[in-house]
Amino acid sequence: VAKRLEKFKTTIFTQMSMLAVKHGAVNLGQGFPNFDGPDFVKEAAIRAIKEGKNQYARGYGVPDLNSAIASRFKKDSGLVVDPEKEVTVTSGCTEAIAATILGLINPGDEVILFAPFYDSYEATLSMAGAKIKAITLRPPDFSIPIDELKGAVSKNTRAILMNTPHNPTGKMFTRKEMDTIASLCIENDVLVFSDEVYDKLAFEADHISIASLPGMYERTVTMNSLGKTFSLTGWKIGWAIAPPHLTWGVRQAHSYLTFATSTPMQSAAATALRAPDSYYEELKKDYNAKKAILVEGLKSVGFVVHPSSGTYFVIVDHTPFGLDNDVAFCEHLIQEVGVVAIPTSVFYLNPEDGKNLVRFTFCKDEETLREAVKRMKQKL
Amino acid sequence: VAKRLEKFKTTIFTQMSMLAVKHGAVNLGQGFPNFDGPDFVKEAAIRAIKEGKNQYARGYGVPDLNSAIASRFKKDSGLVVDPEKEVTVTSGCTEAIAATILGLINPGDEVILFAPFYDSYEATLSMAGAKIKAITLRPPDFSIPIDELKGAVSKNTRAILMNTPHNPTGKMFTRKEMDTIASLCIENDVLVFSDEVYDKLAFEADHISIASLPGMYERTVTMNSLGKTFSLTGWKIGWAIAPPHLTWGVRQAHSYLTFATSTPMQSAAATALRAPDSYYEELKKDYNAKKAILVEGLKSVGFVVHPSSGTYFVIVDHTPFGLDNDVAFCEHLIQEVGVVAIPTSVFYLNPEDGKNLVRFTFCKDEETLREAVKRMKQKL
Ligand SMILES: CSCCC(=O)C(=O)O
Ligand SMILES: CSCCC(=O)C(=O)O
Repeated sequence: VAKRLEKFKTTIFTQMSMLAVKHGAVNLGQGFPNFDGPDFVKEAAIRAIKEGKNQYARGYGVPDLNSAIASRFKKDSGLVVDPEKEVTVTSGCTEAIAATILGLINPGDEVILFAPFYDSYEATLSMAGAKIKAITLRPPDFSIPIDELKGAVSKNTRAILMNTPHNPTGKMFTRKEMDTIASLCIENDVLVFSDEVYDKLAFEADHISIASLPGMYERTVTMNSLGKTFSLTGWKIGWAIAPPHLTWGVRQAHSYLTFATSTPMQSAAATALRAPDSYYEELKKDYNAKKAILVEGLKSVGFVVHPSSGTYFVIVDHTPFGLDNDVAFCEHLIQEVGVVAIPTSVFYLNPEDGKNLVRFTFCKDEETLREAVKRMKQKL
Repeated sequence: VAKRLEKFKTTIFTQMSMLAVKHGAVNLGQGFPNFDGPDFVKEAAIRAIKEGKNQYARGYGVPDLNSAIASRFKKDSGLVVDPEKEVTVTSGCTEAIAATILGLINPGDEVILFAPFYDSYEATLSMAGAKIKAITLRPPDFSIPIDELKGAVSKNTRAILMNTPHNPTGKMFTRKEMDTIASLCIENDVLVFSDEVYDKLAFEADHISIASLPGMYERTVTMNSLGKTFSLTGWKIGWAIAPPHLTWGVRQAHSYLTFATSTPMQSAAATALRAPDSYYEELKKDYNAKKAILVEGLKSVGFVVHPSSGTYFVIVDHTPFGLDNDVAFCEHLIQEVGVVAIPTSVFYLNPEDGKNLVRFTFCKDEETLREAVKRMKQKL
């Protein structure tokens, strides 16, 4: 294996999902729904396949999807972007992240992350030869230590990689935090790479794209995907929105990482993104109900549940149960209780920071959530 | 844009396909069929979507597809591989190439290519910081200058990246050439990355996987895809087959480039790969007929047509028509004649090497091929 990837292990999501299957455990680990996506989107994919939309798409996206992405972004953020010059369709947001980083970051560039962070960020930055600085968000509220952030920005800082609503914590960046990031970036000529895949799962306040703050669009790559919002995580349609000079880098890397993304799936994604507002309202209502079941359940089991205001994840402190650390706790939970959660220490540069915390997802049907709670009540 | 991608332009395939649309030209440029894939495969995809196979696949592939890939490889090459430990499903062969290179090549490693080469090889090697040595295959027969190849191998050589049947020339590596590559690799402890996406389009002799030569499996990554063989280039299903120690590197990079590939498409790909031999025989028969139309047509127009024994491409020498170079010829062909071909100079480290050569594809219905020939006869 190349040195750039030497320190990384099999992704924690793969590890835990394989253990879930092996132990017949209830899987509240990896974030994928155990219910299906909406019929109108599935039907659009079937139509596209039947109609013969089965050859290479245009590298940066089928025109109809690029337009649908630009329209939704305008509706959500107020920003008007050119679908032909500022939108790039990728094979999931993971590829958008990889293309953004490999397309825009040079070896030695410093990039600031917020820990805990989605694991692909660190691995992809390592592939690009970037120097990582991590700012740790501390429970219970996971707010940004502003002075630390200010201290981390140097003349070598090329980008801040942020994620709101935030996986794994469920934190949403506040307007004040975003204003601070924006002024820091403008003052120091720093880019922002913003992963917003959970934008439609914002339960307490509307999601804000940092690109919509004054002076920010020109220095921001906004990344999103279809999977979370349409319960079709396996379709792997993502995108990056950025001004033309940044889009150029993203597209160059994308051209040589995957060249293009599945044509019929893109066609269906365009239909999905034109969903009426009622679709998103319904989705949020359903997830609010699921969240209540899981959060109440976890409290009743005896966890310290940290507040989550977005995403379909909650973080808990497992220390009341007396296990050594997050990994030991998750092993016990799988083997003795039959429930899978995700240990968080892999999401920190310093694993110690995550040793008390594990993540549960509520993107499962209510019966599954209740069954998980029942098992934990009985056996933990 | 990051330095690693600075020298690259928009891919030639994208450029030419966009010009084709703009000028209403007959597109014999980018290699995608203008006919549809087989119904039994499309139906399998539709079934998978309806059955709710729409969430994240296992990162390295859905089990049924990994098995189908291993079975077909056994049938084709005689090699028995473990579908769980030696097969990785990727988002097209382009991603297999990227994951192989980013997962196994360190900055400064030397990699040997054969020019002309598929453009992603050079760009992806540049992303990995590799040093490229190119061995130029010379028309008319595009055989390997063996002494040059021997001279190019040094103690810093990490891999030879080969492609047979070869895009853009249509050359198939001879058994003798492969034996030489194999001994060079074994003697000097060099890996082989073998792109075999046109394996089923071998018109004069059966395709041989270099992995099947004695001592080679343990040092080879064999890459392939669904698109060319099943006329579904837009589905973007590829794979890499390699011994576990190499698969580890490929999977690590793949995990962070795209994580996983479209689930319903993978499910359909498994069905496709279980096609009976008659499917492949029929495919080859169809393509033989198409090839005859194009080759005879190009000769009758006045081109020097170089022999092509595999792929759905032929290379011609355009110098009888008196244009300065391949790019000027292709511009003339689009604007004055209404036909798109691919200039080849972008496929060489030294563009001069390709200045007499352009590539045509015959993966189009017979009417389209005849129309292109007719236009060239009338207007060239
Ligand atoms: C790409 S696998 C991870 C899915 C996910 O977003 C999560 O569980 O955090
Ligand atoms: C990925 S676009 C190129 C298609 C192709 O294989 C070719 O035309 O050479």
